[in-house]
Amino acid sequence: MNVLVINCGSSSLKFQLINSESEEVLAKGLCERIGIDGSLTYQPAGGEKVKTAKDMPTHTEAIQFVIDALTDEATGVVKSLDEIGAVGHRLVHGGEKFASSVIITEEVKKAVEECNDLAPLHNPANLIGVNACEKLMPNTPMVAVFDTAFHQTMPEKAYMYGLPYAYYEKYKVRRYGFHGTSHSYVSKRAAEILGKPYDATKTIVCHLGNGASVCAVLNGKSVDTSMGLTPLEGLVMGTRSGDIDPAILEFIAKKEDLDIEGLMKVLNKESGVYGLSNGLSSDFRDLCAAEEDGNQQAKVALEVFAYRVAKYVGSYVAAMNGVDNIVFTAGIGENDGAIRAEVCKYLQFLGIEINKEANAARGEEVIISTPDSKVNVLVIPTNEELAIARETVALVK
Amino acid sequence: MNVLVINCGSSSLKFQLINSESEEVLAKGLCERIGIDGSLTYQPAGGEKVKTAKDMPTHTEAIQFVIDALTDEATGVVKSLDEIGAVGHRLVHGGEKFASSVIITEEVKKAVEECNDLAPLHNPANLIGVNACEKLMPNTPMVAVFDTAFHQTMPEKAYMYGLPYAYYEKYKVRRYGFHGTSHSYVSKRAAEILGKPYDATKTIVCHLGNGASVCAVLNGKSVDTSMGLTPLEGLVMGTRSGDIDPAILEFIAKKEDLDIEGLMKVLNKESGVYGLSNGLSSDFRDLCAAEEDGNQQAKVALEVFAYRVAKYVGSYVAAMNGVDNIVFTAGIGENDGAIRAEVCKYLQFLGIEINKEANAARGEEVIISTPDSKVNVLVIPTNEELAIARETVALVK
Repeated sequence: MNVLVINCGSSSLKFQLINSESEEVLAKGLCERIGIDGSLTYQPAGGEKVKTAKDMPTHTEAIQFVIDALTDEATGVVKSLDEIGAVGHRLVHGGEKFASSVIITEEVKKAVEECNDLAPLHNPANLIGVNACEKLMPNTPMVAVFDTAFHQTMPEKAYMYGLPYAYYEKYKVRRYGFHGTSHSYVSKRAAEILGKPYDATKTIVCHLGNGASVCAVLNGKSVDTSMGLTPLEGLVMGTRSGDIDPAILEFIAKKEDLDIEGLMKVLNKESGVYGLSNGLSSDFRDLCAAEEDGNQQAKVALEVFAYRVAKYVGSYVAAMNGVDNIVFTAGIGENDGAIRAEVCKYLQFLGIEINKEANAARGEEVIISTPDSKVNVLVIPTNEELAIARETVALVK
Repeated sequence: MNVLVINCGSSSLKFQLINSESEEVLAKGLCERIGIDGSLTYQPAGGEKVKTAKDMPTHTEAIQFVIDALTDEATGVVKSLDEIGAVGHRLVHGGEKFASSVIITEEVKKAVEECNDLAPLHNPANLIGVNACEKLMPNTPMVAVFDTAFHQTMPEKAYMYGLPYAYYEKYKVRRYGFHGTSHSYVSKRAAEILGKPYDATKTIVCHLGNGASVCAVLNGKSVDTSMGLTPLEGLVMGTRSGDIDPAILEFIAKKEDLDIEGLMKVLNKESGVYGLSNGLSSDFRDLCAAEEDGNQQAKVALEVFAYRVAKYVGSYVAAMNGVDNIVFTAGIGENDGAIRAEVCKYLQFLGIEINKEANAARGEEVIISTPDSKVNVLVIPTNEELAIARETVALVK
């Protein structure tokens, strides 16, 4: 079956068409500036990437252009819509309602809407994508795959904040966690690679991208993760602060004459390694280059980043009372051997030994620990689209 | 030498008179409701505790009553002010200016005032106590002992937040940490008890009281601690939230129509185990009793508390790449064997084994790990007043 995987934002839409038997990507692309002017980037497998300006007043036109491209006589990869068996939608926030993927019905859409509060920037946009697809492909089954679902197995001690209990009762303020599709895919893949039973393994996944989170996976189930009610908590990220003293908000609000929305903008867009490096860059390649040139702020930003990852790993080793596998994934985790080495240096007390040559790898599946290492350390490129396609097929088959 | 140790708040003042040779407490007590009406509680060593109503419009009258009580013919412990060789003042926030205790001069007071911003509730009150003492004991040397000083050895990677660098440059927004006098005293005492060199030991101190913090002490120096710019960050405490997703502030502000000051009040006074237990209590004895009676909220509050302590310990094991000694101190740490056992259960991967009988101890110095345990676990009652007296004598001698 061919599965169209959709990741829809408020003014952009990413897609991949995946053959679920061969797990090949038949085509992929991106619609940008929807509602502003619009452009479509489209690339069939083995073909060239082409970007075209297209008038996209709404997401419906965007999806129509995607379908046109996929079925185009010259560069398309299927003959008609009939060859698309299902659509898998990435949805950000499933709240406490969704502990797994689900076939989209009117009821499901209503329940997702009820979570809009928890992800006001993401869920409404995700639903716009769902509605546009339903309009153009009314007979194709649609599946919702949630970023939060994998973490619904967390115990209370991990998801409850030290806040008035009424905030949980009334507003469901708790830790949800994100990147669930990635943490699930990568932790499972580690067990496969090592030939160990997934349901009897302690894994810590470091998903280190522009957004970054760590997850403790005990016997195949998420038991803790560093992102919280929102994706702001946890690690220092590209432009997000991660953990700070909450009292800093009051302090900075007074000093800089900011209201809460202004503070949130700073914490989400102007902080992280970007802020630490005094606005140099949120891109680790830039920061590494600057560090090599002797830039002290870039050096500290990279040190803080790795130190915080190592501390989260340490805390999750305690949470699970041990660890068998540590996995690095996503942009930085897959490509930055220096950061991986730096994180692992803190973890030598676990008996971790890194194979330097293996750790030079970029973007491929590789075990970077030595055979004698007491903990397996792996690099596994994440593939959220494939994971969404698999979840989709499993439900519509 | 007899040292008067003063811990001065905005409307209260605690004191102890300590003989620095014998390290005995000659007398101790408390002034309350200064500026409102006033009362003095006074207890000489071996004598009865007596509380008397006294008119205390300002801290100067309060200190005068303390001096009167200490030199009283019937219940006093010294003949005259001449027998008080020095005064040691607990000061909360020394910012980046004070990395150790210091003899108080006009310059020092000015530098402390410059830190008022960072501790607006505490530093001004501390300084009122200093000024009142100077007025009444103009010839007695005064020493300032800072809660933050011990942590000034933290490296940048531990004290920098993932925030715009300008906030550090302009306002000195960074991690400072508190309970420094306690963390220093207790970590040093652990090395003494074990007969190990303090400057070649990795210690983690869990100071668990109504305020609570964890500290990583590497070779006698603080390298990380859980409290931050203010004492709100870190562990879930009696009524303080500790770590939360900073975005929760925006979420709750909207839902509850609160401004930032209102939020801070909730996070400082209505959160922690008090909030988690739905307002049941911030006192662990009440929570344990309620848990035994089957109260689910009390159970979760205690679980969250212990889990967060264990996670911080795990993260500091990573920060130091190992640990030799873990020490529990302060009200809960000294007296609550169940919490200690619960925390250590998470840490078995370190080769920790607890001696159940030893762990039944309350409020005394005891090694609670077995001789075979790979990490020493101790209970050491903290004694901040004695530590302040020692620091004071070391400077004025």
